[in-house]
Amino acid sequence: MAEECVIGVDLGGTKLLAGVLGEDLAVHSRTYRRIQGLDQRALLEAIVETVEEVRASAPGPVAAVGFGIPCLIDQRRGMATMAVNLPLVDVPFRDVMAERLGLPVQVDNDGNVAALAEQRAGAARGASDAILLTIGTGIGGGIVIDGRVYAGSFGAGAELGHMVIDMHGPRCQGNCPNYGCLEVMASGTALTREGLRIASERPDSGLGRALAEGRLVTGALITELAHDGDQAAIDTLALIGSNLGVGIASLLNVFNPDVVVVGGGVIAAGELLLAPARAEAARRGLPPDVAHARIVPAHFGTEAGMIGAAALALDDVRSRGAA
Amino acid sequence: MAEECVIGVDLGGTKLLAGVLGEDLAVHSRTYRRIQGLDQRALLEAIVETVEEVRASAPGPVAAVGFGIPCLIDQRRGMATMAVNLPLVDVPFRDVMAERLGLPVQVDNDGNVAALAEQRAGAARGASDAILLTIGTGIGGGIVIDGRVYAGSFGAGAELGHMVIDMHGPRCQGNCPNYGCLEVMASGTALTREGLRIASERPDSGLGRALAEGRLVTGALITELAHDGDQAAIDTLALIGSNLGVGIASLLNVFNPDVVVVGGGVIAAGELLLAPARAEAARRGLPPDVAHARIVPAHFGTEAGMIGAAALALDDVRSRGAA
Repeated sequence: MAEECVIGVDLGGTKLLAGVLGEDLAVHSRTYRRIQGLDQRALLEAIVETVEEVRASAPGPVAAVGFGIPCLIDQRRGMATMAVNLPLVDVPFRDVMAERLGLPVQVDNDGNVAALAEQRAGAARGASDAILLTIGTGIGGGIVIDGRVYAGSFGAGAELGHMVIDMHGPRCQGNCPNYGCLEVMASGTALTREGLRIASERPDSGLGRALAEGRLVTGALITELAHDGDQAAIDTLALIGSNLGVGIASLLNVFNPDVVVVGGGVIAAGELLLAPARAEAARRGLPPDVAHARIVPAHFGTEAGMIGAAALALDDVRSRGAA
Repeated sequence: MAEECVIGVDLGGTKLLAGVLGEDLAVHSRTYRRIQGLDQRALLEAIVETVEEVRASAPGPVAAVGFGIPCLIDQRRGMATMAVNLPLVDVPFRDVMAERLGLPVQVDNDGNVAALAEQRAGAARGASDAILLTIGTGIGGGIVIDGRVYAGSFGAGAELGHMVIDMHGPRCQGNCPNYGCLEVMASGTALTREGLRIASERPDSGLGRALAEGRLVTGALITELAHDGDQAAIDTLALIGSNLGVGIASLLNVFNPDVVVVGGGVIAAGELLLAPARAEAARRGLPPDVAHARIVPAHFGTEAGMIGAAALALDDVRSRGAA
């Protein structure tokens, strides 16, 4: 008898990744599509086509589809209420997709589903309470409590990047009106900003010379120079890691989690970021919370959203099976 | 037939308050006892005696007892892991009480049970997701998600007073090693500290004159002068309220709650504290979260802990009835 499958879809600002996964969240097949610049109608059409394409490759019947989307979700209506890069606001996304695909559909924020992926099959496997921070251009968050995604009364919570850590800090980016929140203090954007500042202040460092040579100071460059031993680059990552640790201390005190998982592009810096983050969190957190929680790098990279979206679909299938 | 009752006990640093409550959380009778300075054995004895005393006045059979205690709790073992003012660390409190009283016992942090009281029968009644901040000498927190207390993987979370809002701020108090957390920025202690500073800087204000006359600058004095129209006192409360609002913005973004309830002694200042807190939270929080959440004063005063502890006992009775 053929195994029952689910489809997980990670919808990014520029591309979508869809996969067929089994009950163990192993990926049977995947497909990828660029969606940048599409209007709403073309985007919805592209999503349906991609899901149908990957569905045709499934080794068994597909029971449900899960979506991770980079938007603030209103779970009361299954739709996006704030979306930076996608024309999805005010579409009843869940219901439209369910109708077009003829399958049960679940949708959640990309940070939330990535957290679910880590808790089910990644760095927080076996833990019941886990927090994920995904550090890229911004900082996404996800909270898993007792093995389930928690995102607030109607799904607009878990915006962990928008906890304040420095009330006198700089203005945040995008739709966030806040000042000194974790995102503006510890994201890839903050890493670049601080890297530029430190490069100017220390012209004799590797980072300073790179700037003088006209190289673009990016998170990737800072990480590369730090891995090569440049102290200015190491210090830049340590500063961002330390800011991250302040936010993690708050999360430890509020959530008393088993595990805090740190993912996203910036985690390429590995222990150069994580060790200062752990030290700062340990310096500030309440002792029982600090003693209990592990702070670890993410297991999944670019497939976290797709795998977590599939886990969401799988939970839906199981809860209907149990009902 | 006699109504089934529960007993709620609020164990403070200096006194305990115990009450018999009905299924509607109405208080049938209450008793009060000073416990300051007792050693562990005398304290446990005093608790048992007080519970037995109030139990004798119950109009029907008592089904369970709930305790709210001012300690970090380890729910895995039903005991306190950090207690500032009470000799309760490393006593298996829940099991000792259950054995001595011959009744099912539940125990939780005082902030958590106060949040439950507000959600069941107070300012957050009818809401499923509520946050309570109790502002006294310190800041206690409580989180109710889907109508149940949430306090982390083993109960050491919900320490909302120890979220960082100003990473460069002053060192926190007591057992907290943190800097610039909400407690050190927006508690009664912070109110007094800022009141003293503002009184020195503005000697011609009512607050400044009170200081010059040798009056003790307390939260109560600042509140009294502010209610009388003294601008320095009003500004002091607005500063603390604004700091509080920074913390509330983080809570809105993380929890997307229906209601944030502000209680504790400092809420005697009413709108002089809450209006600046609401304004700052609205300025910083993500729009959907800000639009959804109410920020309101607590309904219960000194009985919140007792009523919430009774609610905890009642939940326990019901969950066993349902099992």
